[in-house]
Amino acid sequence: MAEALVLEERHKIALRDIAVSETLGPDDVRIAVHTVGICGSDVHYYKHGAIGPFVVREPMILGHEAAGTVIEIGQNVRHLRIGDRVCMEPGIPDAGSRSSRLGLYNIDPAVRFWATPPVHGCLTPTVVHPAAFTYSLPDNVSFAEGAMIEPLAVGVHACVKARIKPGDICLVTGAGPIGIMTALSALASGASRVLITDISEAKLRIAGSYDRVLPVDLTHAGIRDAVDATCGADWGVDVTFEASGFESAYVDALACTRPGGTLVLVGMPPHKVGFDIVAAQAKELSIETVFRYAHVYDRAIALVASGSIDLKPLISATYPFRDAVAAFERAAEGRPADVKIQIAL
Amino acid sequence: MAEALVLEERHKIALRDIAVSETLGPDDVRIAVHTVGICGSDVHYYKHGAIGPFVVREPMILGHEAAGTVIEIGQNVRHLRIGDRVCMEPGIPDAGSRSSRLGLYNIDPAVRFWATPPVHGCLTPTVVHPAAFTYSLPDNVSFAEGAMIEPLAVGVHACVKARIKPGDICLVTGAGPIGIMTALSALASGASRVLITDISEAKLRIAGSYDRVLPVDLTHAGIRDAVDATCGADWGVDVTFEASGFESAYVDALACTRPGGTLVLVGMPPHKVGFDIVAAQAKELSIETVFRYAHVYDRAIALVASGSIDLKPLISATYPFRDAVAAFERAAEGRPADVKIQIAL
Amino acid sequence: MAEALVLEERHKIALRDIAVSETLGPDDVRIAVHTVGICGSDVHYYKHGAIGPFVVREPMILGHEAAGTVIEIGQNVRHLRIGDRVCMEPGIPDAGSRSSRLGLYNIDPAVRFWATPPVHGCLTPTVVHPAAFTYSLPDNVSFAEGAMIEPLAVGVHACVKARIKPGDICLVTGAGPIGIMTALSALASGASRVLITDISEAKLRIAGSYDRVLPVDLTHAGIRDAVDATCGADWGVDVTFEASGFESAYVDALACTRPGGTLVLVGMPPHKVGFDIVAAQAKELSIETVFRYAHVYDRAIALVASGSIDLKPLISATYPFRDAVAAFERAAEGRPADVKIQIAL
Amino acid sequence: MAEALVLEERHKIALRDIAVSETLGPDDVRIAVHTVGICGSDVHYYKHGAIGPFVVREPMILGHEAAGTVIEIGQNVRHLRIGDRVCMEPGIPDAGSRSSRLGLYNIDPAVRFWATPPVHGCLTPTVVHPAAFTYSLPDNVSFAEGAMIEPLAVGVHACVKARIKPGDICLVTGAGPIGIMTALSALASGASRVLITDISEAKLRIAGSYDRVLPVDLTHAGIRDAVDATCGADWGVDVTFEASGFESAYVDALACTRPGGTLVLVGMPPHKVGFDIVAAQAKELSIETVFRYAHVYDRAIALVASGSIDLKPLISATYPFRDAVAAFERAAEGRPADVKIQIAL
Repeated sequence: MAEALVLEERHKIALRDIAVSETLGPDDVRIAVHTVGICGSDVHYYKHGAIGPFVVREPMILGHEAAGTVIEIGQNVRHLRIGDRVCMEPGIPDAGSRSSRLGLYNIDPAVRFWATPPVHGCLTPTVVHPAAFTYSLPDNVSFAEGAMIEPLAVGVHACVKARIKPGDICLVTGAGPIGIMTALSALASGASRVLITDISEAKLRIAGSYDRVLPVDLTHAGIRDAVDATCGADWGVDVTFEASGFESAYVDALACTRPGGTLVLVGMPPHKVGFDIVAAQAKELSIETVFRYAHVYDRAIALVASGSIDLKPLISATYPFRDAVAAFERAAEGRPADVKIQIAL
Repeated sequence: MAEALVLEERHKIALRDIAVSETLGPDDVRIAVHTVGICGSDVHYYKHGAIGPFVVREPMILGHEAAGTVIEIGQNVRHLRIGDRVCMEPGIPDAGSRSSRLGLYNIDPAVRFWATPPVHGCLTPTVVHPAAFTYSLPDNVSFAEGAMIEPLAVGVHACVKARIKPGDICLVTGAGPIGIMTALSALASGASRVLITDISEAKLRIAGSYDRVLPVDLTHAGIRDAVDATCGADWGVDVTFEASGFESAYVDALACTRPGGTLVLVGMPPHKVGFDIVAAQAKELSIETVFRYAHVYDRAIALVASGSIDLKPLISATYPFRDAVAAFERAAEGRPADVKIQIAL
Repeated sequence: MAEALVLEERHKIALRDIAVSETLGPDDVRIAVHTVGICGSDVHYYKHGAIGPFVVREPMILGHEAAGTVIEIGQNVRHLRIGDRVCMEPGIPDAGSRSSRLGLYNIDPAVRFWATPPVHGCLTPTVVHPAAFTYSLPDNVSFAEGAMIEPLAVGVHACVKARIKPGDICLVTGAGPIGIMTALSALASGASRVLITDISEAKLRIAGSYDRVLPVDLTHAGIRDAVDATCGADWGVDVTFEASGFESAYVDALACTRPGGTLVLVGMPPHKVGFDIVAAQAKELSIETVFRYAHVYDRAIALVASGSIDLKPLISATYPFRDAVAAFERAAEGRPADVKIQIAL
Repeated sequence: MAEALVLEERHKIALRDIAVSETLGPDDVRIAVHTVGICGSDVHYYKHGAIGPFVVREPMILGHEAAGTVIEIGQNVRHLRIGDRVCMEPGIPDAGSRSSRLGLYNIDPAVRFWATPPVHGCLTPTVVHPAAFTYSLPDNVSFAEGAMIEPLAVGVHACVKARIKPGDICLVTGAGPIGIMTALSALASGASRVLITDISEAKLRIAGSYDRVLPVDLTHAGIRDAVDATCGADWGVDVTFEASGFESAYVDALACTRPGGTLVLVGMPPHKVGFDIVAAQAKELSIETVFRYAHVYDRAIALVASGSIDLKPLISATYPFRDAVAAFERAAEGRPADVKIQIAL
């Protein structure tokens, strides 16, 4: 029995006791959870009770963006010690699967991911987690930043897949949390400048507060003009990250990427998208799709610790655990100026 | 003035004299054309008078798949001599363009391509062509095969972009001329086996006459069963080449490619395609688009000369130049068992 | 207790009973060994009692190139059944190591490899092996060919690392077993032709018996002439595989590879090699090093099964198990025309 | 006739008038030279009269690291205007060569490079240069920084070849000008931290003045300890850039790079290097060699303009043109704390 933030069913969450199995295996660590961020997927389960084929049929603990302190270690664990400050990668694959053996553990269909039905999340005081997916935080990375590594990892992974070259000019379509963190990742990956588009002035203001990020307000200006001013006429950006899922963004992406450039599909549109294949072919674009992340937690932590990426301006509010329900209600409002709402346990 | 097969306007072709400028520059060669293949694009101009933005406004010589004999060389030409048997790459880029300098000359917007308005094609007894885009044919490669290098180059280029690894299992959706030549290119590029789909029994019979090509008749069988039988259950092919442009083929492509696999978009659909981006993301597919070819003519010739690729079964009929109009009429019929119709001058 | 070919110490082998632990774990299979090939490393341990830091201190069963039949399966095994004809990948990594998780399991320092002290090999009637490293053989691949998959895997892996493009012209320096199998792998990976060098006429005759392999006898001819005749003057081969470990071969490799080409270092020289770094820089060569193989057993099997690679001409002699000592003595002679000596149990 | 800094012969330079051909072609621009940096190769010609096969047989103008102002443009030039502040890429390839067409123009053997015999350099008030190799400087990039783009391009190109991933930890062996600029390029390309080694305390002090650069003084400390402290035990850096040409550095490079890592050979050793190939194979290192640079001038300029790379601390002294001889004498001294000596015209 543990206290936890439980999604009972669609629209109904409660902070209450729930029975959970917390046996510590020889390769596991037990962690006192300190900070948990609220993700769009948590909010989606709260509002809709399901994401695609994943339907909440039993009460489920929410939360998968977490940092905390190791309080117990399994007998085989070597790289972690009690007292270590850590963050946790929430998806655990089958190490022997065909995908995992190839190094593609994120696309192992058997992956168990926190707060994805029927797997419980981590909004509870202690969790047991495989040590192999638990990462030490350097002293200069706070718990709050540690709990941001999970969404940042999406951006860093997108940049690995993009094979950014030093000096590339990039475009990110969509200035939500993932869009902004992708933009920061692109800069930290060698981009000299990043254009970012949105229709929300508030979101663009936050994105534009970072050096070398050029916000483009789609309600006022054509994106093509901004691209031409930055890249020279009749060319385009080297890499576009589509991070909105909006159909119009794919049109922008195809129009604004240079011949031979790369388009990374990060956003997940709810329906099929009408895609202009011939437009992509005329420029021979390479298109990379991404699913979560693999092998980037240590990279993301290193970039935060080294100062290449500053996550602190993206933490919009922090609620105590006892107000976790209020935190979710705030997150569900979707205030334009909110990037990340966190809960501190 | 030279005799040529001229597209006067939509639906109207004639073998007649036409004024052409044939000045030999210092880097050019003059070639006596021996064989010209008829491409789907030639037929499309014949039937529709246009392909997308390229509209036939003046009489235009057709043909761009050609082989012949060098009969005169410019003063700077070193690698060719009079009497050399050659085939010609029909697209001439601006060598100083931003794309060309990066090595991406095929996507230089300034490229001038035979039989693409307003540029004349090569269905005429002699042509002048840059030596740099004229390739010697080894003794064991016939003129007829030489005139097939152009469409084969599309397949070889698609395989270069696919980064095929030795032993890969591939799928080609669509058994038209480009689909079959892509399948042969994939086998010559390291694939161990290639599945190829179509709804035409006649086309599949031709494709299936090659070793290691497994035809799948979509009118009788589910493609997924054939993929599972070849690749093992719950996995998929390493690389899919979409070579039909049909909307349903994109669904097959997404369903049949393995996690972490590659999808190469070769076919050019006439409209936007409803594309399931989330399905591609769930497998983290890499998607490569291709536009014609670059740097592969010598590769394609080498693969034919070495016996890796046998093009001879794909030459369905050869017409003398005086019957060039009849050849086009035959090509325009689109007989299912016809792969390539050629004209010998 | 099992009968086995045991290396007692340097220069001393015997077919005798030896105590071995053969407990079947839940993820293992038990295999009746049918055919085992003798590798140069087996012979090296026989002659020298050590390879670098690996010293034979206790009696050790030899042999690591093996095929056989599954006779018992562990409870978790799904992809194999009793009676399956199989071959075995002899190196077992720690699945949780940093290298393995990245997909680089071959360079996990903790790998346990058959017949590498202190690990026993497989020249004994039955072995227990992890199912994950045991591969089914198609009906048209014999046990003898199955036991050749191990050395072939070295060549296929080298070709994966080489990123061969279709139509590439390759050079292999050294026509020993690995050199020849690398040449065959290169052809099966998309090379149009492969030049292969050696000073042994007998070895070159075997290599040259394959289509598209051009033997170059270094005792008679300059390699550069052969390269120029094949690739055109002042250019070079696209990929060179150094497979001899001889210092002079590195000179040839640097001289014969084209600007921007790739050099794959397969051979393992016994000492440091005097390497002309500036010569490599002037052509901006990419140099790939390889260590055994990873993720290629299924690829190698597929290429043999599909007929892309014919291993049968490389099996020089087969001895019954009772004559295993004689087989080793023959292998230790190093007859020039011997490629692979096998033992059938 | 123009005034220029002329290398008459080994050890003898003079500021004097010399006859030069300065015809402006249609694709050229004429540039008033403002700043020229002195490169190690300039000094080497001064001291030795030759670099490898390049021997100074006639008086030759020195200098190839330059920035200036466009004062006349050829009739075909579109992307530059009179008055533009620019820097110049000093190597001009044959655009039609086999290398150039592949995009590898830096390894075209026909390249003509400033101050490489018999081609004059740019230490003279005006030069004519192809517009295609002349790059605009943004307002916030000074002439002094513009004249540093040439050596910086070496570092940026090395990073492109290294395919740095975000968060990589890198090692640079050698803290000379190229070593430091490679370290800065690596950080700007996504590295989270860069270790840099040297035996000069003065050079390390300059390198270490940059954030995220960790100097390792080889006279005091083992490099391996520093690597372990940064990367964890028994692993290593992701990418090593060898930038010294010293034989011992290759040993460090092999010892310190992680399994599956990349080694980029930037330094040009004067003789063959004893290279431990088996040590590289045991980690399956990829080794990239680099020769000058290609396609990176715009990238290097963008990284300076965006603030990712700060070159200003590396400009040690600036001499007026009339003191150019003194500038060379200072550069030839090789003071440990001097990174770059420049001449302002």
